[in-house]
Amino acid sequence: MATTEYPLLEHVNDPADLRSLTRAQLKQLADELRAFVLESVAKTGGHLSSNLGVVELTIALHAVFNTPEDRLVWDVGHQSYPHKVLTGRRARMGTLRQLGGLSGFPMRSESPYDTFGTAHSSTSISAALGMAVAARQKGEERHAIAVIGDGAMTAGMAFEALNNAGVADANLLVILNDNDMSISPPVGALNRYLAQLMSGRFYARARDVGKSVLRGVPPLLELAKRLEQQAKGMVVPATLFENFGFNYIGPIDGHDLDSLIPTLENLKGLKGPQFLHVVTKKGQGYKLAEQDPVAYHGPGKFDPQIGLVKPEAPARQTFTQVFGQWLCDMAGKDERLVAITPAMREGSGLVEFERRFPERYHDVGIAEQHAVTFAAGLACEGLKPVLAIYSTFLQRGYDQLIHDVALQKLPVVFALDRAGIVGADGATHCGAFDIAYARCIPNMAVACPADERECRQLLSSAFAQDHPVTVRYPRGAGVGVAPLPALDGLPYGKGELRRQGQQVAILAFGTLLYPALKAAERLDATVVNMRWAKPLDAGLLARMAATHEALVTVEEGVVTGGAGSAVAEWLAQEGIALPLLQLGLPDAFVEHGDPVRLLSLLGLDAAGMERSIRRRYPALVAPAPALRAVGEH
Amino acid sequence: MATTEYPLLEHVNDPADLRSLTRAQLKQLADELRAFVLESVAKTGGHLSSNLGVVELTIALHAVFNTPEDRLVWDVGHQSYPHKVLTGRRARMGTLRQLGGLSGFPMRSESPYDTFGTAHSSTSISAALGMAVAARQKGEERHAIAVIGDGAMTAGMAFEALNNAGVADANLLVILNDNDMSISPPVGALNRYLAQLMSGRFYARARDVGKSVLRGVPPLLELAKRLEQQAKGMVVPATLFENFGFNYIGPIDGHDLDSLIPTLENLKGLKGPQFLHVVTKKGQGYKLAEQDPVAYHGPGKFDPQIGLVKPEAPARQTFTQVFGQWLCDMAGKDERLVAITPAMREGSGLVEFERRFPERYHDVGIAEQHAVTFAAGLACEGLKPVLAIYSTFLQRGYDQLIHDVALQKLPVVFALDRAGIVGADGATHCGAFDIAYARCIPNMAVACPADERECRQLLSSAFAQDHPVTVRYPRGAGVGVAPLPALDGLPYGKGELRRQGQQVAILAFGTLLYPALKAAERLDATVVNMRWAKPLDAGLLARMAATHEALVTVEEGVVTGGAGSAVAEWLAQEGIALPLLQLGLPDAFVEHGDPVRLLSLLGLDAAGMERSIRRRYPALVAPAPALRAVGEH
Repeated sequence: MATTEYPLLEHVNDPADLRSLTRAQLKQLADELRAFVLESVAKTGGHLSSNLGVVELTIALHAVFNTPEDRLVWDVGHQSYPHKVLTGRRARMGTLRQLGGLSGFPMRSESPYDTFGTAHSSTSISAALGMAVAARQKGEERHAIAVIGDGAMTAGMAFEALNNAGVADANLLVILNDNDMSISPPVGALNRYLAQLMSGRFYARARDVGKSVLRGVPPLLELAKRLEQQAKGMVVPATLFENFGFNYIGPIDGHDLDSLIPTLENLKGLKGPQFLHVVTKKGQGYKLAEQDPVAYHGPGKFDPQIGLVKPEAPARQTFTQVFGQWLCDMAGKDERLVAITPAMREGSGLVEFERRFPERYHDVGIAEQHAVTFAAGLACEGLKPVLAIYSTFLQRGYDQLIHDVALQKLPVVFALDRAGIVGADGATHCGAFDIAYARCIPNMAVACPADERECRQLLSSAFAQDHPVTVRYPRGAGVGVAPLPALDGLPYGKGELRRQGQQVAILAFGTLLYPALKAAERLDATVVNMRWAKPLDAGLLARMAATHEALVTVEEGVVTGGAGSAVAEWLAQEGIALPLLQLGLPDAFVEHGDPVRLLSLLGLDAAGMERSIRRRYPALVAPAPALRAVGEH
Repeated sequence: MATTEYPLLEHVNDPADLRSLTRAQLKQLADELRAFVLESVAKTGGHLSSNLGVVELTIALHAVFNTPEDRLVWDVGHQSYPHKVLTGRRARMGTLRQLGGLSGFPMRSESPYDTFGTAHSSTSISAALGMAVAARQKGEERHAIAVIGDGAMTAGMAFEALNNAGVADANLLVILNDNDMSISPPVGALNRYLAQLMSGRFYARARDVGKSVLRGVPPLLELAKRLEQQAKGMVVPATLFENFGFNYIGPIDGHDLDSLIPTLENLKGLKGPQFLHVVTKKGQGYKLAEQDPVAYHGPGKFDPQIGLVKPEAPARQTFTQVFGQWLCDMAGKDERLVAITPAMREGSGLVEFERRFPERYHDVGIAEQHAVTFAAGLACEGLKPVLAIYSTFLQRGYDQLIHDVALQKLPVVFALDRAGIVGADGATHCGAFDIAYARCIPNMAVACPADERECRQLLSSAFAQDHPVTVRYPRGAGVGVAPLPALDGLPYGKGELRRQGQQVAILAFGTLLYPALKAAERLDATVVNMRWAKPLDAGLLARMAATHEALVTVEEGVVTGGAGSAVAEWLAQEGIALPLLQLGLPDAFVEHGDPVRLLSLLGLDAAGMERSIRRRYPALVAPAPALRAVGEH
């Protein structure tokens, strides 16, 4: 299927190059681009289905608009690979999502064609509107274009932007890339509405209206026609998007350059907010991805001829799987449990729960704000909601967390996946801030399991509380401590001594406990598994402070305001002046790359911890073997 | 106008009491309730216009529905005074918004009739949907009702909730209280759409559809009629809300009990998501408020016979006014400046700016998420956005702050009003968390002006940076240090020594500098005006640490993760083990009440600081006068 020869694509090093191609050549270019993207993603891993779906749209946009002078914003941005290939980054696609390589998302620092960094959904209309309004203010004639999927369109901020854009006198083009397919299957009224829009008379009607505009009917004539219809009581049905003040065109076939290019050319000539509804198919052109776009949403490396192969030996259990299993088990025991996901059924490990407890499963769409307050409403009625959400996505529901859940002290469990380094997805998805942002909220508790077994146990502990609790766990697998089948929790707010050492005590929060234990062996340091960033185990801390000369805190989260600062606050409160070394993520965004390598670079593997502690407390730890000490200088 | 006698109202101590009244009596009750609310608010201050607008709606809801078994959620909740009066709290209305008194918002701990605490806008549909879904799961027959204003409807989370509710099989009634009036004048496409809905044929058509449902036309017949119309190509115009899967009824007159009660009775019998569009007038029944609902939105005490009186001597300048003046002055100097408000023109001090710079003024509606990313888009194009927003409202745009502004290091100034204790509005509006939640974000700086003059200077400093900066200032007036006309900034990240004392150094962040100075006089302590919570002035800190035996930090924000913790982190990083006392807001929500009294109760006035410092460091401060020391024990 994939060819290794790209005669046309090889000569497109800039969108300007493709603007000189004929329509027939552009179609060939689309075929080459699709084959190239498939070949490339098969080698590196990354997002596939979404990129195969926008090949023609990407070509059409760069052919019609004067990028980068015209601003193109890709919502979510995981569909920007064809865009990257066409904008001078073809040769670097082999470095995708690797340390020092291309980002898997648009990034302003990477290319002038990446006008806005995206990754979290539904930001594109706001950003493009800002650009359009700026152009107006500066008297610059340029277009701003947001390309947004139907899944992303369900998020509230997309509507906030539509509401604002519909009355702003700005040249904004919103392109709805409707593939009826966000990461999880589509949910909600909007998706149903879009389906309706694409079928039956309504579709035909809307299409006619679109065509009449495209044929260049004078606006006044069109207006007169509508007024006449209204006078007869035959009101033309306005689409949702027309209600918001947009000129709605579509739906059109997003894989047909003969539809896309003339439509975009026409829209380019219109003033004010324009809305183009494009229908595409995820995985288009690669049969296996077309048939199973979810599996091919973000595959690892694979052979395009064979497709994804189920690994023979099952991979080590991930924290996500531990959570999914706990959720099912606890739901079987306690019928008050309900689970909520903002459109991340697969990523959050809820597939099995939905199958077994469909009535208690709520996929609310990409709607984190609503998800949190919806959970609050459920909790008011005596149910026990568990919100499965990524660390960085809960940032979207931060006010709701404070105002609706914590202030009312409602028992909602936040199962926070992707807390800490995430690897290939990079800074936008790096769960660095949750300990800091959750810890400062009254009534909130924060648990940091060190391994799979504790993850299950601390979820049970969290579920038993009468107030909100966050349980944070990282992407991927832990050290491999198998969970116990029981649903017993660990004591609330209590840590445990894991190693008795000499003068330095390492207080570990979360999975970095294990490298800390390794480092402690060489340092002869004490190690405590703190388990809870809030509340702190004051008794255990007091013992450690009384019996050691210095403390070290370790966490996979920002030091600024993090768990180590909780310890600092406790020391201050107790009036204890003891040296404290805080190890964790720096006050900088952590880029994409292999997680093991990143942790090492950040000094958060065993060697890095040992190095930092030795440097800070040379007189308080066991001497280093001579060879290593030399090697360090 | 206001009568002091309430013959019917006096006997309504519970909604059950009003269910036995005749329609004529209910109308009289409405008159009495309106008069009572006016008289009560005139005495206590509080929200007026919105409450006068919902008198009939409140009576109708309690008359028709079986509250509190049926769940009633008031969006924003500042219109819940009539509800409070009717639900057993009439006698306590004189304590409204005072310490220990009734809250100005619904509060679960205050009454079983307050099913969900509100205050920040647009949460009601999510919460009510949660309650409706819980009822379904538990097999309980009850209704859940959300009452939401047209302003609140522009926030994204309302749409997230509609999108979810439209497909949820739950008995949810959403009542749109359309008064074409949020706090600032309405903006955005939705408001324009609602106006359209209320006028012309469309209105009539929608009303007819509503009436036909109300007349009890069998649903199947209605469906057949619609199908027939569709077959003829005469598609019935669907309202926006029908597109979302709701059964739309309205608009109806929200001051007419003869419309309200039968309509609600009918809706009570329908299953699935229902949407009732009610039109009311803010300030209804009190001429002065009808004419100027903005002025009467949240008045202080006044004489209802006279109305609001302009104070003879202008009140002391507030921080909000200092900001508004700075904004105009800086806009005059730098044409790149643009100002953004999420629907808080008056509260954020932007009235004059809008008048003078309409092209550079952007009221985006109640849409904090969009506001932040819109600012990011503007900044990408070389403009310099200033986002005027309350401390607790920025919680709504937290992810956008991290993901769109800070990660891309865009120069957006966040002018954070209401940072710290807010007084009568209480916990929901208390700006306690911003230092903690902003400080942990890379690329972000946080300035804490101590007085009016510094506020202006630090805004200028912030505006000069090439990255995001938050300038936080409290509600109300400062100590009265007049701003200088110049637009010069203070040095970035630098504090100043304000008082040289002996062994204890107080590091003050923000306006608590002044009580700290008073306390320091009695303690003979050093006082530093830190000015920046991030970055810290490391040089100054090092000098203080080297020359003092102990440190104290003071801030009007939570201690957990706050500016004092930044100092603790700095000490840890430098390997300095020095006693540190962190004074600030507790790890608990601060209720409504007089701000001066609250600060005193929290130990954050001069006496409280002196007490805390003396207790912690008895040997390091000047001895207390004998009398005081005795008085303390």
